[in-house]
Amino acid sequence: MLEYVTDPDDPRLTDYTRLRDVELRKSLEAERGLFLAEGEKVIRRAIGAGYPIRSVLTTRRWLAPLEDVLGDATVYVVSDEIMSGIAGFQVHRGALASMERLPLPGVETLLKRGGRRMLVLEDLVDHSNVGAIFRSAAALGVDGIILSPRCADPLYRRAVKVSMGAVFSIPYARMDDWFDGLAQLREAGCQTLALTPDQTAAPIDEVKAAGRVALLLGAEGDGLSSHWLEEADQAVCIPMSAEAMAAGVDSLNVVAAAAIACHGLMRSSR
Amino acid sequence: MLEYVTDPDDPRLTDYTRLRDVELRKSLEAERGLFLAEGEKVIRRAIGAGYPIRSVLTTRRWLAPLEDVLGDATVYVVSDEIMSGIAGFQVHRGALASMERLPLPGVETLLKRGGRRMLVLEDLVDHSNVGAIFRSAAALGVDGIILSPRCADPLYRRAVKVSMGAVFSIPYARMDDWFDGLAQLREAGCQTLALTPDQTAAPIDEVKAAGRVALLLGAEGDGLSSHWLEEADQAVCIPMSAEAMAAGVDSLNVVAAAAIACHGLMRSSR
Ligand SMILES: C[S@@+](CC[C@H](N)C(=O)[O-])C[C@H]1O[C@@H](n2cnc3c(N)ncnc32)[C@H](O)[C@@H]1O
Ligand SMILES: C[S@@+](CC[C@H](N)C(=O)[O-])C[C@H]1O[C@@H](n2cnc3c(N)ncnc32)[C@H](O)[C@@H]1O
Repeated sequence: MLEYVTDPDDPRLTDYTRLRDVELRKSLEAERGLFLAEGEKVIRRAIGAGYPIRSVLTTRRWLAPLEDVLGDATVYVVSDEIMSGIAGFQVHRGALASMERLPLPGVETLLKRGGRRMLVLEDLVDHSNVGAIFRSAAALGVDGIILSPRCADPLYRRAVKVSMGAVFSIPYARMDDWFDGLAQLREAGCQTLALTPDQTAAPIDEVKAAGRVALLLGAEGDGLSSHWLEEADQAVCIPMSAEAMAAGVDSLNVVAAAAIACHGLMRSSR
Repeated sequence: MLEYVTDPDDPRLTDYTRLRDVELRKSLEAERGLFLAEGEKVIRRAIGAGYPIRSVLTTRRWLAPLEDVLGDATVYVVSDEIMSGIAGFQVHRGALASMERLPLPGVETLLKRGGRRMLVLEDLVDHSNVGAIFRSAAALGVDGIILSPRCADPLYRRAVKVSMGAVFSIPYARMDDWFDGLAQLREAGCQTLALTPDQTAAPIDEVKAAGRVALLLGAEGDGLSSHWLEEADQAVCIPMSAEAMAAGVDSLNVVAAAAIACHGLMRSSR
């Protein structure tokens, strides 16, 4: 159903309000239970993963490539000018879709589904990092991701985009309770391995992960909390060059660390 | 030498003009032979690595933590208002330094210095990716990085920042000639390994890298050119989950791939 909209302040476009205002978007999206998918590929994957469409915003030019998947969704067609005015940036392949969120499973439910290779993110607040980790995790065969209560939202536009849509294919859940989060993992039979740049921890290639494994990753600035480091079954490090550390490069970025850890440890737990 | 500047258009501030205009900055910095370091830590590392200071731009508040390293450099002190007006973003820890570039070594010179573990980047145009790869490479013991002619500048502000200053500690050079670039590496005794998501290539953990190794990485969109893929001694892949690939996640991002490859192959070539 096409609707041509010529006024950027038209109330039908409120799902797409102030896209560059992260704080406003976070509360707006939570309240309305929506998220945005950007560009044809990502929109297709979101639809394919079963998320209902609320509406699509696009220009005449970018309508055609999407037509076959839109069904009877409401499509707002605007001029290029209104599009870039609304977005405030170059919209990837000229299309945005407002999608309905689906209820997330609880951590317990996610763990009951099985899966031997889990990733646990503690307080990663950067949407790009969360998206990039989902992409690596999916590609490297991780079975599920658990987020601490304060982790960034994987369905935030930037995370969805950087993940290449992996946020739709990998099951994830969010903890209610940070303090007892690891206890719950242990009860579900996970060996919890805390990844830390501390070079006195066990080198990752010497760790034998036999059964069900959960890799814990910490935030860019602070790393893992001391509570989780203590609670974890084992602290594990990726060895780094002593010269680089002396020169001030004293950790890997969390996306790089996640990739190495998923590749290495997940392989050994197959 | 402190100079208080109260007019944002003061000609003394031209090194800091239009920081968010990437194209303008690229040509301005090339013409004047400068680059910008942002925040106390990065400024310290740049000075420590021997780059001469042209000037520093800061506010009263952020002056003190830097004073001991500035020597007799010219320091422009501005109000918070002018600072954020000039930058157009939140300047990390309130200080920017305009630094003199030093002449880069040629590829031949870099290769003559020795070093067994080299990374070669083909046409990576994203400054964040280049910075992140330098950070991983430094931390994981890479000896040098070679850039194709069209690769993004590691000294661009964003790359410097994301690298945590690793662009100052890891030697790098830029090829003059893309077409014969790999021949030069081979002549210097490097085994050239082309990293590709193509899952029919040799799995990375089965590749034995004995002597001097150069890992080739391709750009986010296109991957390695077919010319380099053909010219390389061997194509190498990081195995990916078949389900993820079916769901559309058909490659790792280049930062993740670089991290896994540096960790794995570099280790085996020690
Ligand atoms: C940038 S680091 C955090 C740095 C923080 N200063 C610290 O000491 O933990 C972000 C996360 O990446 C992972 N990480 C980074 N470098 C690592 C390494 N060499 N070995 C294992 N994990 C690492 C850890 O999970 C860490 O919490
Ligand atoms: C995002 S990928 C490029 C994707 C591009 N469509 C292609 O087919 O090459 C960017 C670079 O990361 C590296 N890369 C990504 N996934 C990889 C994998 N599974 N194995 C080895 N290298 C990979 C390659 O060097 C590639 O050129």
